[in-house]
Order: sequence, then structure tokens, then C-alpha cells
Amino acid sequence: MTSERLEAFSDGVLAIIITVMVLELEPPHETTLDALYEMFPVFISYIVSFLYIGVYWNHHHQLFKIADKIDGAILWANLNLLFWLSLIPFTTSWIGDNHIDDIPVALYGIVLLMSEISFLILKKNIINLHGKTSKVSEHLTKNGKNFLFFSIHILGLSLMFINDYIPLACFLIAGFVKVMELKKVYDYMHKVKLDALS
Amino acid sequence: MTSERLEAFSDGVLAIIITVMVLELEPPHETTLDALYEMFPVFISYIVSFLYIGVYWNHHHQLFKIADKIDGAILWANLNLLFWLSLIPFTTSWIGDNHIDDIPVALYGIVLLMSEISFLILKKNIINLHGKTSKVSEHLTKNGKNFLFFSIHILGLSLMFINDYIPLACFLIAGFVKVMELKKVYDYMHKVKLDALS
Amino acid sequence: MTSERLEAFSDGVLAIIITVMVLELEPPHETTLDALYEMFPVFISYIVSFLYIGVYWNHHHQLFKIADKIDGAILWANLNLLFWLSLIPFTTSWIGDNHIDDIPVALYGIVLLMSEISFLILKKNIINLHGKTSKVSEHLTKNGKNFLFFSIHILGLSLMFINDYIPLACFLIAGFVKVMELKKVYDYMHKVKLDALS
Amino acid sequence: MTSERLEAFSDGVLAIIITVMVLELEPPHETTLDALYEMFPVFISYIVSFLYIGVYWNHHHQLFKIADKIDGAILWANLNLLFWLSLIPFTTSWIGDNHIDDIPVALYGIVLLMSEISFLILKKNIINLHGKTSKVSEHLTKNGKNFLFFSIHILGLSLMFINDYIPLACFLIAGFVKVMELKKVYDYMHKVKLDALS
Repeated sequence: MTSERLEAFSDGVLAIIITVMVLELEPPHETTLDALYEMFPVFISYIVSFLYIGVYWNHHHQLFKIADKIDGAILWANLNLLFWLSLIPFTTSWIGDNHIDDIPVALYGIVLLMSEISFLILKKNIINLHGKTSKVSEHLTKNGKNFLFFSIHILGLSLMFINDYIPLACFLIAGFVKVMELKKVYDYMHKVKLDALS
Repeated sequence: MTSERLEAFSDGVLAIIITVMVLELEPPHETTLDALYEMFPVFISYIVSFLYIGVYWNHHHQLFKIADKIDGAILWANLNLLFWLSLIPFTTSWIGDNHIDDIPVALYGIVLLMSEISFLILKKNIINLHGKTSKVSEHLTKNGKNFLFFSIHILGLSLMFINDYIPLACFLIAGFVKVMELKKVYDYMHKVKLDALS
Repeated sequence: MTSERLEAFSDGVLAIIITVMVLELEPPHETTLDALYEMFPVFISYIVSFLYIGVYWNHHHQLFKIADKIDGAILWANLNLLFWLSLIPFTTSWIGDNHIDDIPVALYGIVLLMSEISFLILKKNIINLHGKTSKVSEHLTKNGKNFLFFSIHILGLSLMFINDYIPLACFLIAGFVKVMELKKVYDYMHKVKLDALS
Repeated sequence: MTSERLEAFSDGVLAIIITVMVLELEPPHETTLDALYEMFPVFISYIVSFLYIGVYWNHHHQLFKIADKIDGAILWANLNLLFWLSLIPFTTSWIGDNHIDDIPVALYGIVLLMSEISFLILKKNIINLHGKTSKVSEHLTKNGKNFLFFSIHILGLSLMFINDYIPLACFLIAGFVKVMELKKVYDYMHKVKLDALS
């Protein structure tokens, strides 16, 4: 089974998730700069979520470029990932609606955490299908230990009781950790291409 | 006629249906755990509907992988299926808005039932086009008798007058019956692949 | 220039238009059959619009299967068609919100009329690009005279002042005229396929 | 790395952005021509935004037809472009909701400006990847100086304090400048095709 339609469906869902958030950006009733300024927390959460979903689309893109085949378990693991990512707009707008507050920030962190865990499950299933000794699995295993991501993320969640902006900052840093990871994936794919040519 | 664009269009519609439901998840005004807890029925109906549409996408995916060709009747049968599936977000949010109540639950059950019947009509049209003696039709006919799905579903609908949670539980079980069916489809496709290699 | 990405983009827009209308289907606040019955005009306009967009997707699908190439003018004619089709959900919900009334029905008719004219312009551009003597143009010209569609449509619009249900009925009949036209297109494509084989 | 999935994802996002604006077109409560007439500013901003996104889709389409390959930087530059384009529906509806006023018009102009700058960054990245001496880069550099677009745009923004309709008119003219540019791109692609044949 090839992954074409899985990718098309995922692209569709991710494209919708990333743009659905725009719908929640309700323009202020007044036409003053102050009214726009009051929307600041909404914009911030929009940008953070846009970045996160962009990063996941990027990782997803690379993952299925690397994978040679898929099976039923992968289809489900993918649906699970999409499910958690689909909750990002909801939590984003809860933060945006209420300025920064404890419970919404915690829920946001948990949804981002579950997205990451779902991505790891998806990776795990791809490794299982390809066999642990395959080149694909070797690469995925090596770069699959995002210990740093989880540490920063959970640190952020636990510091929630001190100040609400600290976890948000931690989520942002964790997001950039994921961006850095992408570089490794690109290097790998570049190397594979060179290997294929030589 | 090949099914590429039909699949692309269906992927688009299904991707939208599955994510449209997120838009109906309006964040609570307060930022307490209680406010989140009150959203419990909404979340449950979101998860059930996400699962159902995920299952149908999966079945749809496999169906057109198995089918060799399509015709006008299949295009219309497919549109009919998409029509019924597109009503799932509406009925989902009716249940979610009103906690669990008779009429919304019954409507939800009917929409799920009509989706299943539409899927059978789509299958029937594919069998007709390929000829009843073809290998494709043989497989589809054998696995097309989802007697169990309908029994559980209709049992659930009739028990609605006793308790509103029983039908919802039945719909969930019927959903899992459809998940089980998928395994048979995967096994068939795996066998076809092995046959092609030998 | 091939039409792959034009088709992908159009599929995306049409898939969204067809499902956007579900978002406008707000569930009633009460959970009685009466509340559901009151939504009857909304459901009717939903079904009519779903059918119309389904028919246009079908026609669009066939048109680009027949066309061999595209150019800039076709890209714009296509965007123009998508623009008019994108207004269907808006007019649909205006009818649905207000039961059946003069101005919304007239606007609905005009949008459907403009969609048809836009489709003819798109066809015209494809004929121009392929040359009037090409086989593709010959077929498109022959089946391009939807005199019947316009007659019924304009008859409906003019009878608006007698009764509001007459135009809606006419739009439905005109829609079915377009469905009938599709049969001719399918027959043509089947013949082309046979010609290619012999 | 080929650009197929990047194009599919972008098509999805652009298709949603272009249709999301329809959702903001709320039908008036009354069914009179006056009620429709009052929606005039909303319609105008809808048409302008539809045109702009149509033009960008067109340019985007051509850009990736010309480009031979992509890399990580291009993926991110593309996400950045999609981010700014995704803000168009928000600013559009802010103008529409409030008739024409200073701050919304200025914000609209800034979003359109940032979209254009993002498009230039995307182009720049494609030129960098292909090498400045490649044929692709030569073409993109030659047609990349949209000095006229920026002049008209910034002129419009600065005249905002005299009259709110002048900047809107300037944005429209700047949009048409981008449409004209497309012609050059088409001519180039036609020439490339002829070169390939000879």
C-alpha cells in the first residue's frame, strides 16, 4: 500500500486546521488601533499555533517521504495524530478569548504534548512495518528521541503555577526544538539522495 | 474513467467534514475545570464522529484501491454517500448542545444508518460495473453483508425509549464492527499483492 | 500547461463550498420533532445546493478530462466560475433563514444563472485554445447549447411574482436538465475510449 | 525533493482561504433589496480579496512549475507566504463590517504588502537553490522587480489620510499590475516549451 492518499487526506486536514483558526479571528467592532491592540493575545496564540501545525506538516511530509510503505496500523496512528492536532484551534481560541489563564494554558500544553506522543506512535508504527534493521528505521530511531522537547514542555507545564507566560514561552522553545530536528531530517534525505546517485 | 479526481474530491470533503466539527467546539467563557467538564458530552460526540468519519475514509480509501474503474452511476453514489456523511457534524453538534436527548440521538442514528446504506449502494454500483463474476465483485460481495452492523444499530435505535445512552453505546459498537471489517479488506489486499508477485 | 493543479485547486474549492453549507445548518435549541420540522426550508435549500454543486463538479471533472491543455485565460475563466459557485452557500442560507421570499429567491436564481454563464465562458475558452475544428471543440460546441436550461431558468425567474415556489421548482428542473446533459458527456467519453482502442 | 506535496498543501490552504470569506458573508435578516444594498462594502471587499488570492494562486502555480526542486528554506518561505495570505479574510471582514475606515484599510494594505514581500522572499529562496546563473533564476530575477506594485501600494497607503477610497483603488490597481506580470510568466513558459520541442 502506498501513502499517496493518506498524504492527500492529511494535507487536507492540516490545511483546514491551519486556516480554521483564521475563522476564529473575529475583527473588533471598533476601528481604532486600541481595538486591534486588545486582540494581541489572540494574534500571539494564532502565530504559535500556525508555527506548530506548520512544523508538524513539515515533519509529516518528511516522514512519508522516508517511509516506503504503509499498513492499517499506520492509517490509524495517522488519524490519531490528526485528531490531536485538530484540537489545537479549539485550545488556541480558548487562550485567545480569555487572555492568558491557568486552565486554558494547561489544556493547550496537554494537547501539544499528546500531538507529540501521537507523532512518536506514528513513527513507531512505521519502524515496526519496515523492520528494526532497515535503513529507514535506523534513521527514525536515531532521531526519534526527542528527550529535549519533552523536558522543556513538562518543565513549562509544571511552572504554570508561578506565572502563565512561562509555560507559553517553554512551548515556543519546544517548538523551535522541533524545527531544529527538521534540519537533521533534511540532511539525512540529502545524504540518501547522494547515496542513490553514487 | 479512473478514480483519481473522485478520490481527491472525496478526500477534500471528508477532510473538511472531519475538521468542521472542531469549529463547533466553542471554548467555554470561563477558564475553570468545571467549564471544561460541562463540555464533556460535546467532546464525546466529537470523538465518536471523528472515529466514524475516519472509518468511512478508510473504507472509501480501500474501496477505490480495489476498484479498477468508475462510471457516472458511481460518481453519483459517491456524492450521495458524501451528502449523508456531511450531515454528521450537524447531528453531532445537536447532541452536544443539548446533552443527550431522544430526538437528536435518533436523528444521529438515522444519519449513521443512511451513511452505511449509501456506502452499500456505492459498493453495489462498483460490483455492477465490474461484473458479478469478476474477482473484485467476488470480494466485495463476500464482505458486503454487514448484517451485524445493522442489527446492533437498529437494536440501539429501538432501545432509545429506555435510556438515551444505550443507542450511543450501540452506535459505538457498530462503529467497531466496521473497524473489524477493515481487517478483512487489508488481508484481501495483502493476498492480492502476493498473488501478483507469484 | 496541464490542468492537474487547476483541477486540484478547483476540487479543493468545490469540496469546501459543498461542505461549508453544513456549517450554516445550526441545530435547533430544542430537541423536539417540531424544532426539526421548522428547519425544513433550510434542509431543502441545502439539498438543492448540494445537488447543483455536485452537478457542476461532475461537469467540471468531465470538461478537464476532455480538454488536452489549458492557458492563462482558462485559469481566469475557472476562477470566475468558482467565484459564482462560492456565492451559492450565501444565497442558500439567505433563503433558509427567511423561509421562501421574493428577493432571496431572485438572488439565488441570478447566482445559479451566472454560474451557468461562467461555465459557458470556461467552455468557450477551452474551445478557443483547442481550435474550432478540433475534435474536442466539435464535441463541446455540439453539447454547449443549453437553451433548455436557460429557458426554464428565466421562466422561473419571471414567474417569481406569482408564487415563490414556482421559481425554486424551475431551478430544480433546470438542475436536472444539467444532469441529463452529463449523460451525453459520458457517452462521448465512452466512444472516445472505444475509438482509441480500435 | 520535489514540490508535489508542497503544492497540494498550498492549494488546500489557498482554496480554504478563498472560500472562508464566504462564511463571513452573513445574509441580512430582512429580505429587501435595501438590506442587500447595505451589504455593498462587504461584497466589494469580498471581490477584491477573491481576486488577490486568485492572482497569488496563479503566481504560486507558475512559480513551482518553473522551479525544478525545493529545500527546507523554501518550505518555510512558503508557510510564511501562506500565513500572510491567511490574514486577508480577517482584514477583509474588518473592512466589510465597518464600512470603509482608516485603521482597517491601513491594516488591509499592510497585509497585502507583507504578502507581496513574502512572495519575493519565496522567489529569492528558489533563486538561491537553483544558483544565480541558472535559467530559472535568470527568468525569476528579470521579472522579480515589481517596483511598480510597491510604488502604487505605498502611494495608496500614504494617501489614506485624505480619503479612504483612494488606497482601496490603489490596491486594486496594484492587483492588476500583478495580473499583467502573469502574462510575462505565461510567455516565458510558452517559450520554454517551444525550446524544449526544438
